[in-house]
Amino acid sequence: MQPRAVVFDVFGTLVDWRGSISAGLAAFGAARRITADWVGLTDAWRGAYAPSMARVRRGERPWANLDELHRDALVALLPDFGVPTLPSDDLAELVGLWHRLTPWPDAEPGLRLLKQHLVIASLSNGHVALQVDLAKHAGFPWDIIFGADMFGHYKPDPDVYLGACRYLGVSPGEVMLAAAHNEDLAAARALGLQTGFLVRPMEFGAPDHRAWPAQDWEFVADSVEELAAKILG
Amino acid sequence: MQPRAVVFDVFGTLVDWRGSISAGLAAFGAARRITADWVGLTDAWRGAYAPSMARVRRGERPWANLDELHRDALVALLPDFGVPTLPSDDLAELVGLWHRLTPWPDAEPGLRLLKQHLVIASLSNGHVALQVDLAKHAGFPWDIIFGADMFGHYKPDPDVYLGACRYLGVSPGEVMLAAAHNEDLAAARALGLQTGFLVRPMEFGAPDHRAWPAQDWEFVADSVEELAAKILG
Repeated sequence: MQPRAVVFDVFGTLVDWRGSISAGLAAFGAARRITADWVGLTDAWRGAYAPSMARVRRGERPWANLDELHRDALVALLPDFGVPTLPSDDLAELVGLWHRLTPWPDAEPGLRLLKQHLVIASLSNGHVALQVDLAKHAGFPWDIIFGADMFGHYKPDPDVYLGACRYLGVSPGEVMLAAAHNEDLAAARALGLQTGFLVRPMEFGAPDHRAWPAQDWEFVADSVEELAAKILG
Repeated sequence: MQPRAVVFDVFGTLVDWRGSISAGLAAFGAARRITADWVGLTDAWRGAYAPSMARVRRGERPWANLDELHRDALVALLPDFGVPTLPSDDLAELVGLWHRLTPWPDAEPGLRLLKQHLVIASLSNGHVALQVDLAKHAGFPWDIIFGADMFGHYKPDPDVYLGACRYLGVSPGEVMLAAAHNEDLAAARALGLQTGFLVRPMEFGAPDHRAWPAQDWEFVADSVEELAAKILG
């Protein structure tokens, strides 16, 4: 059954966070005459993402949005990479890099194609304000943005997937999650959503086991355009 | 100061609910060979809107979205207009008319113009699902939709206006509410938002006192295009 709505993961699935953040850090470093392993810092920064959200999910930390989690992680990581302590404005500038990530080339045209036939929505752990900036930067033509702050939960908590279905007024079986990450899709499938796996072998810089489907997802595609063609038949 | 975001009321401000609903009711009646005062029913249906929301706002009725409020009001009104009891599918079809309202001609081009320079969002008492349908039908290119079900409150409750500001990550003074209704703007102004009044003399079929500004709103305009030109300078 063709879904009535496709909800998309964003980081890695639609945008190249690694290329964007490492380039942004390198430009910042060049302007400040700071030398560091910016790609390594990018990977470490992203590496802090899941554990920092997990602390919020387990209730060990009160609700904090991605800007706050990114800021705290960056402050903790800078000494490891030999970067001097940065003033608050600089930290805000670097945290803001996550609001202006470069999309994979197929993302925006694929979304526009799908939007002609069904509802397209973001379903990201980013908060609404971050996602509004990102959608404007990347040209994503969302029908509706779903941010973690609308649910007070981070994926893979069920509240996020089921909350999106409830807002859309449709049953989980009428919704497809599209994501480049097996664990995100597994959580959605467990709740009855359809699943579409996007193969993004370069998300982490080089293909590894994470880039390939770990289950028989309903659809597997190399691009949003290919996914759209498969969904729309 | 130019606002960073403009949030829009929708019913009456951007779409012609009276022309759309009365035409939809008349088409339904013609197909069912039912004769009635469809324009009168439209006005009575809309007349039930504020009181039905007020009961929710006062806690006399548990949360109910506009589809539910519209359905209950219609069931109560049909006998007054000599319309026989309708089956559930017909009621759903008529309630669905509120998801497919015709925009005022200036709305979509004006929104596109504003979107090039700042964030545009809906801030309607409609729920998210209704507004997604309406935006697709009317071509509204929202950066983000704010629906009453995201707040569990109806305007003019402060939670709605302040909730939108919080999601956008900006202070109330950086946001403008654009609406055709003085009471909506008054509630927003009391919370520190900027205000833009849209003159929609035909919203209720003929101009009356409601169509004109009751306060010195920051901007008054006859169309979203004119409002955009004034905001953008």
